[in-house]
Amino acid sequence: MDKVRIGSVGLGRLGLRHAENIAAKIQNAELVALCDVDNAKLTETADRLGVKHRFASFEEMLSLSDMDAVVLVSPSALHTKQIAAALAAGKHIFSEKPLGVTVAECKEAEKAVEAHPNLVFMLGFMRRFDESYQYAHQKVSAGEIGKPVLFRAYSQDPEKFIQGAIAFAPHSGGQFLDMAVHDIDLARWFTDSEPETIYAVGGCYAHPEFAQYKDGDNVSCLMKFKNDCMVFLFAGRTAPHGYNIETEIIGTKGTLRIASVPQKNFVEILDAYGVRRECSENFLERFSSAYVNEMQEFVDCIITGRKPAVSVYDGTKVSEIAYACKASFEQGTLLKF
Amino acid sequence: MDKVRIGSVGLGRLGLRHAENIAAKIQNAELVALCDVDNAKLTETADRLGVKHRFASFEEMLSLSDMDAVVLVSPSALHTKQIAAALAAGKHIFSEKPLGVTVAECKEAEKAVEAHPNLVFMLGFMRRFDESYQYAHQKVSAGEIGKPVLFRAYSQDPEKFIQGAIAFAPHSGGQFLDMAVHDIDLARWFTDSEPETIYAVGGCYAHPEFAQYKDGDNVSCLMKFKNDCMVFLFAGRTAPHGYNIETEIIGTKGTLRIASVPQKNFVEILDAYGVRRECSENFLERFSSAYVNEMQEFVDCIITGRKPAVSVYDGTKVSEIAYACKASFEQGTLLKF
Amino acid sequence: MDKVRIGSVGLGRLGLRHAENIAAKIQNAELVALCDVDNAKLTETADRLGVKHRFASFEEMLSLSDMDAVVLVSPSALHTKQIAAALAAGKHIFSEKPLGVTVAECKEAEKAVEAHPNLVFMLGFMRRFDESYQYAHQKVSAGEIGKPVLFRAYSQDPEKFIQGAIAFAPHSGGQFLDMAVHDIDLARWFTDSEPETIYAVGGCYAHPEFAQYKDGDNVSCLMKFKNDCMVFLFAGRTAPHGYNIETEIIGTKGTLRIASVPQKNFVEILDAYGVRRECSENFLERFSSAYVNEMQEFVDCIITGRKPAVSVYDGTKVSEIAYACKASFEQGTLLKF
Amino acid sequence: MDKVRIGSVGLGRLGLRHAENIAAKIQNAELVALCDVDNAKLTETADRLGVKHRFASFEEMLSLSDMDAVVLVSPSALHTKQIAAALAAGKHIFSEKPLGVTVAECKEAEKAVEAHPNLVFMLGFMRRFDESYQYAHQKVSAGEIGKPVLFRAYSQDPEKFIQGAIAFAPHSGGQFLDMAVHDIDLARWFTDSEPETIYAVGGCYAHPEFAQYKDGDNVSCLMKFKNDCMVFLFAGRTAPHGYNIETEIIGTKGTLRIASVPQKNFVEILDAYGVRRECSENFLERFSSAYVNEMQEFVDCIITGRKPAVSVYDGTKVSEIAYACKASFEQGTLLKF
Repeated sequence: MDKVRIGSVGLGRLGLRHAENIAAKIQNAELVALCDVDNAKLTETADRLGVKHRFASFEEMLSLSDMDAVVLVSPSALHTKQIAAALAAGKHIFSEKPLGVTVAECKEAEKAVEAHPNLVFMLGFMRRFDESYQYAHQKVSAGEIGKPVLFRAYSQDPEKFIQGAIAFAPHSGGQFLDMAVHDIDLARWFTDSEPETIYAVGGCYAHPEFAQYKDGDNVSCLMKFKNDCMVFLFAGRTAPHGYNIETEIIGTKGTLRIASVPQKNFVEILDAYGVRRECSENFLERFSSAYVNEMQEFVDCIITGRKPAVSVYDGTKVSEIAYACKASFEQGTLLKF
Repeated sequence: MDKVRIGSVGLGRLGLRHAENIAAKIQNAELVALCDVDNAKLTETADRLGVKHRFASFEEMLSLSDMDAVVLVSPSALHTKQIAAALAAGKHIFSEKPLGVTVAECKEAEKAVEAHPNLVFMLGFMRRFDESYQYAHQKVSAGEIGKPVLFRAYSQDPEKFIQGAIAFAPHSGGQFLDMAVHDIDLARWFTDSEPETIYAVGGCYAHPEFAQYKDGDNVSCLMKFKNDCMVFLFAGRTAPHGYNIETEIIGTKGTLRIASVPQKNFVEILDAYGVRRECSENFLERFSSAYVNEMQEFVDCIITGRKPAVSVYDGTKVSEIAYACKASFEQGTLLKF
Repeated sequence: MDKVRIGSVGLGRLGLRHAENIAAKIQNAELVALCDVDNAKLTETADRLGVKHRFASFEEMLSLSDMDAVVLVSPSALHTKQIAAALAAGKHIFSEKPLGVTVAECKEAEKAVEAHPNLVFMLGFMRRFDESYQYAHQKVSAGEIGKPVLFRAYSQDPEKFIQGAIAFAPHSGGQFLDMAVHDIDLARWFTDSEPETIYAVGGCYAHPEFAQYKDGDNVSCLMKFKNDCMVFLFAGRTAPHGYNIETEIIGTKGTLRIASVPQKNFVEILDAYGVRRECSENFLERFSSAYVNEMQEFVDCIITGRKPAVSVYDGTKVSEIAYACKASFEQGTLLKF
Repeated sequence: MDKVRIGSVGLGRLGLRHAENIAAKIQNAELVALCDVDNAKLTETADRLGVKHRFASFEEMLSLSDMDAVVLVSPSALHTKQIAAALAAGKHIFSEKPLGVTVAECKEAEKAVEAHPNLVFMLGFMRRFDESYQYAHQKVSAGEIGKPVLFRAYSQDPEKFIQGAIAFAPHSGGQFLDMAVHDIDLARWFTDSEPETIYAVGGCYAHPEFAQYKDGDNVSCLMKFKNDCMVFLFAGRTAPHGYNIETEIIGTKGTLRIASVPQKNFVEILDAYGVRRECSENFLERFSSAYVNEMQEFVDCIITGRKPAVSVYDGTKVSEIAYACKASFEQGTLLKF
């Protein structure tokens, strides 16, 4: 295959970004179809990006014969079903996280993927494709920081998006499933190990609205991994300074910190507020190139027949761990994994 | 009282520093006596600092009538007994941490202090007297960062001191008692609250020698405090980069980080290793002015009749929490406090 | 025009990068031809990038009718002649700096460009297209830092490339023409003004080889601009830490610094060398996205009929200023401009 | 001599600080006399610091027999005369900068000092006694950064003090004499060399009031030193972010930057303004310990008979260079030194 013909479903903020990337920035790829229930947005986007086929129905899009792959940026609750349908239709799949909204759904997705060994399935843990994370991972893999002692990760959303988060709260699955999954994935990737124990805490520090969904606006958990590495994760929705994704790996020989200052760019400002860096706005800004890199990897895997580094099993594992965090948080107990 | 006449016991590294500070940098104080079992060191130091009275025995020093206060930098196991004796002799006391090596000892010290309400008793939690910690505490107290969400503290000793740490391991009480107590004190000070639950983990990542004492070379714990604040503490002995004391308080309105780069001074170096800051060597360098400030506070309290901010009860509480961390770490369980 | 068909000449490091960008990352562009005297490199690159037409002769390439534009990454001495020829052949031109190797050549280029008002001509001052420089420029233009007081710019090449710089010294025109031109362009762009006085100094601090060409390995100049802004430029070839492009604009209301730490990425390392950031390797790494952005701008200008922000006159002005710096440096005099 | 008995003249902000330091923080020193024309301030300060002798007249203070040394923090115009008188009275002298308000005055001071070889004379270039500057100087002296290529220094006063600066403008001598002298001293100290050429520029960017005194609110100069080192100095009065004293020494083997971020302390703030450091307020805050260190050095020199590192000739040289900068700035010419 010279060129991968892709249909993309879902035109929310991230869906739009994926569509734009495929249309313009991914080599050996062509955006041949778009699918969304919002007809105005569908038409506007397809016209702007020069996309021929437009669908309101995912099933109809799947019947398109000159389409090799689908990109799922649809609501989480639809993922498992769409994965099964797309595989049955012989399409390669790139799916946004989560793999499914329950662990049972994830297991179903695993079976569907296993039944189609010749089709590429990749999950969108884009942080692994950010240049800084990749640089750090190479150093860790090369043993430059020795044995991992503590893995610490923060995921903070700006306070200014809080109304959206509150509105989405009934469907988000809670902060561990909605936000911490990326850090859970990073923890497994960097330590090459799995949790043994989990203790999660948190609460509603600024926004009591989350309590009715048994969720908090800020949560954290401490895990001990099977290789003895300590893992501390923090996820919050009330950062005044911006979108703060920060990761630290302390090893016996050295420490790596990724984005310890969540700087927007290389500009430093000296003014009445001191010496300061403005921060990233949101995930689209911070992981702009990571989204391109992961999609390129998806396309390259299809063309070369390579398997993506992020497998369907990673999706299940991350969900299982996130559910355990949620359970520990809700019950106030220590869980063995 | 115009001038506080002080006798200091113990001439280890920190004892020496306290003696030098009292002799030269503390206003309204006079170093009138020194006590140490090492006679050569005692003579050398007393001669150098111009100190008149020298003692091998603490009890003999207490009988000195023209001495108002004692500073205890003696071995931890002696603290409680020396506190009781000094109070009985009518002396004000500045004692290095810990208050006692068991909680029972701490309770005894409490009683002795309560029995002498007119004598000043102060415990050496010097970090509270560091300018940066004080600046941050004022901001937190003034509500500038809103409600505390997460308190995170790291205490890392340089790997180059590891042989000393191993030699001291049989007597240290473990990392939570030996190192984390300062961060436990800071957590209580910044959050104005107490732990409710504790889960501690850790291990021997580089130095198996600590295992025989049921200790690790790196440990951490996650606590939920009664005011809902999450508290994460990490203590390690294997930092290659230097002495790293780092504290972060994330609030609903802002975040403060103290010494997120443990820079030695204001010099930045650009060379073959990149753009870099050299780090603090040890506690004497990092908290150089804090040691002066706390001793000045002790002297000022005696002169003005004020009570020190750090009370004997703080000493007990910190010990209780450190013992709970130790128990959680040893048993692998979640503890309610 | 839907798609701009481009032929690129010169396959050195930067030429290769431009070719790769056009082939893969530029929207609405197609790389239809490559030209280089090194046949092996030409064939390898054209095969790899799927480029149909290959030429050893620039003149022959110009005769290609289904080619709309040329990109000149050829030796500096050829620029003026190639610009004239390409314009005469009706091609749009993107030319790497310098416009010409003498001011007279630049003036010739101006005339050629003026004679073809319907063809797009753009010069490769890529720093203007770097996200951080653009962000800073918007702030300055919006008046956020008030009136410009001091513009300071550093351009430092890593010491490890010194042998290449020495080998190139006979043809480089000296550091002001070879390196400082980018900063001269930035100074004019940020201050929207021109030099009035120039005083330049420097020398051979580590590598006496440059002296025979009346050049130094490190040079600097102080200019007063017509709007009163002070401008200080420093260019060096002996940086041990990496490729350091750093710019500061001090205004009456605030200061902006771009890349005050020339960090390679967002990874911070804590190890035996302290707390450190590794630095950019070279211009291809640091300005990776700027090279894409500028080429996209070139293509967009052709398609939309817009004029590029960087004009042929900018090329002449920058050369005039660089020559004045060189003269001041060689003669040790203050020059009025 | 066991204890140096000091009389201090002048109780402005810096005079007050020196008096407080001598009274409380300098070993082997005693503050025995204070002199100021403001009687209320004199009485209040002397009472508070427990100083026995108080004078409105400097001459009367000199007649005090149990006083070994004087500290001059008086108006600049009085320095030379007071130096001569104090030496004639057999007193050691610590004088604030400048040595004199003209070069002729400085030469007179030199002669007076030379006539009293047994008396210690020290000039208050306190930056040399700041820990970070000392650390950097040791590295430079040890050859760690190779041969000095560029010395760059900024001295910026906060905009909020501008009214004071305007009021003082008729008497300040201009920015080079008033502010840049500290950086001129540092340049000579770090490079161990002297200027050969000087070109100075600047202007009134925000405050035209300075023009009538032939001064600017922001000025800079580029010098070539005899050892070939390039020296760039910038002095400004309009910094919105605070008191910014920043120094960089670029060498052939490495670069050192002192206070590239003029951080007030070790606290980092993350809030709506980004990730930021608050800045130093003024010289008293930034050089708090340097003022102690320099006075201790003065006292130690008297006691041990050592000569201070900062000599009277340093004072003259710095004044000569500052006057040359001023002349170049006023005339718009390049000066050979």
